[in-house]
Amino acid sequence: MDINYIQGGVTSPQGFLASGIHCGLKKSTIKKDLALIYSEVPSNAAGVFTKNKVKGAPLYITKEHLLNKKARAIIVNSGNANTCNGEDGLKKAKKMAMLQAKELNIKTDDVLVASTGVIGVPLNIDAIKDGIPLLTKELAKEGYEDASSAIMTTDTFKKQLALEFYIGDVKITLGAMAKGSGMIEPNMGTMLSFITTDLDISPELLNEALKSSVKISYNRVSVDGDTSTNDMVLILANGLAKNDPITEKDEKYETFLNALNDLNIKLSKNIAKDGEGATKLIECKISGAKTEDDAVTLGKSIVNSNLVKTAIFGSDANWGRILCSLGYAQIDFDPNKVDVYFESCAGSIKVCEHGTSIEFNESKAKEILIQDEITIKVDLFLGDGNACVWGCDLSYDYVKINGDYRS
Amino acid sequence: MDINYIQGGVTSPQGFLASGIHCGLKKSTIKKDLALIYSEVPSNAAGVFTKNKVKGAPLYITKEHLLNKKARAIIVNSGNANTCNGEDGLKKAKKMAMLQAKELNIKTDDVLVASTGVIGVPLNIDAIKDGIPLLTKELAKEGYEDASSAIMTTDTFKKQLALEFYIGDVKITLGAMAKGSGMIEPNMGTMLSFITTDLDISPELLNEALKSSVKISYNRVSVDGDTSTNDMVLILANGLAKNDPITEKDEKYETFLNALNDLNIKLSKNIAKDGEGATKLIECKISGAKTEDDAVTLGKSIVNSNLVKTAIFGSDANWGRILCSLGYAQIDFDPNKVDVYFESCAGSIKVCEHGTSIEFNESKAKEILIQDEITIKVDLFLGDGNACVWGCDLSYDYVKINGDYRS
Repeated sequence: MDINYIQGGVTSPQGFLASGIHCGLKKSTIKKDLALIYSEVPSNAAGVFTKNKVKGAPLYITKEHLLNKKARAIIVNSGNANTCNGEDGLKKAKKMAMLQAKELNIKTDDVLVASTGVIGVPLNIDAIKDGIPLLTKELAKEGYEDASSAIMTTDTFKKQLALEFYIGDVKITLGAMAKGSGMIEPNMGTMLSFITTDLDISPELLNEALKSSVKISYNRVSVDGDTSTNDMVLILANGLAKNDPITEKDEKYETFLNALNDLNIKLSKNIAKDGEGATKLIECKISGAKTEDDAVTLGKSIVNSNLVKTAIFGSDANWGRILCSLGYAQIDFDPNKVDVYFESCAGSIKVCEHGTSIEFNESKAKEILIQDEITIKVDLFLGDGNACVWGCDLSYDYVKINGDYRS
Repeated sequence: MDINYIQGGVTSPQGFLASGIHCGLKKSTIKKDLALIYSEVPSNAAGVFTKNKVKGAPLYITKEHLLNKKARAIIVNSGNANTCNGEDGLKKAKKMAMLQAKELNIKTDDVLVASTGVIGVPLNIDAIKDGIPLLTKELAKEGYEDASSAIMTTDTFKKQLALEFYIGDVKITLGAMAKGSGMIEPNMGTMLSFITTDLDISPELLNEALKSSVKISYNRVSVDGDTSTNDMVLILANGLAKNDPITEKDEKYETFLNALNDLNIKLSKNIAKDGEGATKLIECKISGAKTEDDAVTLGKSIVNSNLVKTAIFGSDANWGRILCSLGYAQIDFDPNKVDVYFESCAGSIKVCEHGTSIEFNESKAKEILIQDEITIKVDLFLGDGNACVWGCDLSYDYVKINGDYRS
């Protein structure tokens, strides 16, 4: 199947507009803090949310508004997570949707809400209220750039993509914008991703495709093992491509899922690469685990290990830390069968065989590990469970960003 | 019950000698790397070992030698973990015990073995072999200082304690030495603790007391969430105090257990405080969880969160990160009932009530948080499950120690 990436973002699919403005939640007036995505026609919608028991107020409102599996707009603020704000938070999240709905002349439950930023500080709803008229007026095809700026926190680059693929001879477009682990003021990171498409697909299958895709993309990223209270992935599909509607899990569905997976995996890798303070993307490929779930758990244990993360930061071929992190993942495997490789654009080197040290060329290992995208390949020789997960290294800047307010 | 801490260490109980020398495993000749603890008379013994599936070779040998619940000597090297070394590692760990046994003229299975240091590098058994005669010759009452030096890696201070308590009118002495998370060359940290006592207790109850005590002390410490391959706690009880022997779970047993817990908790806190790069001890007190196990899991989730650890490093009253880390611990609780306090020698301050922000004096919070021992108190108001766990902050030095070999 052909997937063709194009210049663009959430407004690339037909019928989608977007905007981003500064309304006053961030102190700096040159930093945008309010974004809007809008479908000119009714649209099916689906969402996936954080599993954290502590959830931001917007998540409750957005879930409620998704009950009818339809939505036309997504309003997102940065600068305040609207989390741990009790009843007041819920009221304000609802009000955000209501105000935006009124301005767009659509129903309140057609508006989805997301927030990212500091926790436990009351949301300045007045700033948002005052911003909504301008935000709505600015809606445009070119607005995707402003929208994706407005959801950034400590992200160092915008994460947006657009791609085209075909169902039969009908061109379908997918667009997306995401933010990774960042903070404001400072606070915890949040992973947000908003996907748009002009595909005609039933809401049930849209939901199923999103869930399945999130499982192998965003859910396999870890910057620091801290699952945010506000993580959210939303998709809107407005059907304007006028393809033969997807109503069952046929070849067309697979074609769409394949494109969606490709998009989400690319965004996930960008999120990992732009983790707070990160200097390197770590891709961890586990093969030969008993099951795919086992492979994911083992891979996550590796990319979440501070000792592995600091070793990769230091370009140190310290595979013992990898064995160690596999060992405490509470997954069944045979330590005496494990092979470990380090790989990058500079080559591949085996550093551990059957769980034991082997001689390897240290300078070759260094050459591989000084690159900025490192793959840790682990073969367990037990079964067919394979998985790829992504993380990043742990650097001085992570500590600086999250901890150093003394200076 | 009275517990009286005294100057001393593993040789404080009657009949114990110790020594520590440099045999050549560490490069610097002024750094000791081989330690010995010896009981002049037969001694009951028990051990608790890492749950990591990847285990160092010494752990297999020591477990084997503990099958008869007796031991008289513990030989420990630093500078090499003798882990991931396959058959060769097992042979060398066995040989270490054998050589030491021969020199002491005791049985091989009366010698327990422990190692800490780099993983996956063959152990230089010749250096140990050559060192054993001197190591044995140096055995002395004053040897506890050298012994505890010889097991240090990146530890910044020696961790040894001795205490006295009474069973009836018989004075019992407990001694101990431990090492925390450190590294060599560099590599992973290992928690080792060796306890001696002249108490007369059945091996079964000694084992039970140790297990029960480890559960509420060492097992509640986390420096970086990475469970080492070589963690080990051993206890020898030689009976020379001539107390009425402890053979059932009576008041005498409780008296001993109480003293053992006190000792192990103090050592555990020292280990947390001396975590790699740590500038602060974090004590996390969870109360009102459904069960004690739930309280431990929630507390560990807090002290393992890199975002909490960096916030404490930065003396930042960022309680949102605490709520967040509770939320992903996969334990049942009500986020709307949670109260959070920060405490230290400078006072106590409530920062979150019913899961929601409350106004608090920021400069008072700062004054509390700039201290070097911080307590995070979390009340869940659900049940009777309480627990205390310990960790440390995450600083630039953690990254430096474990990752920065570029400079």
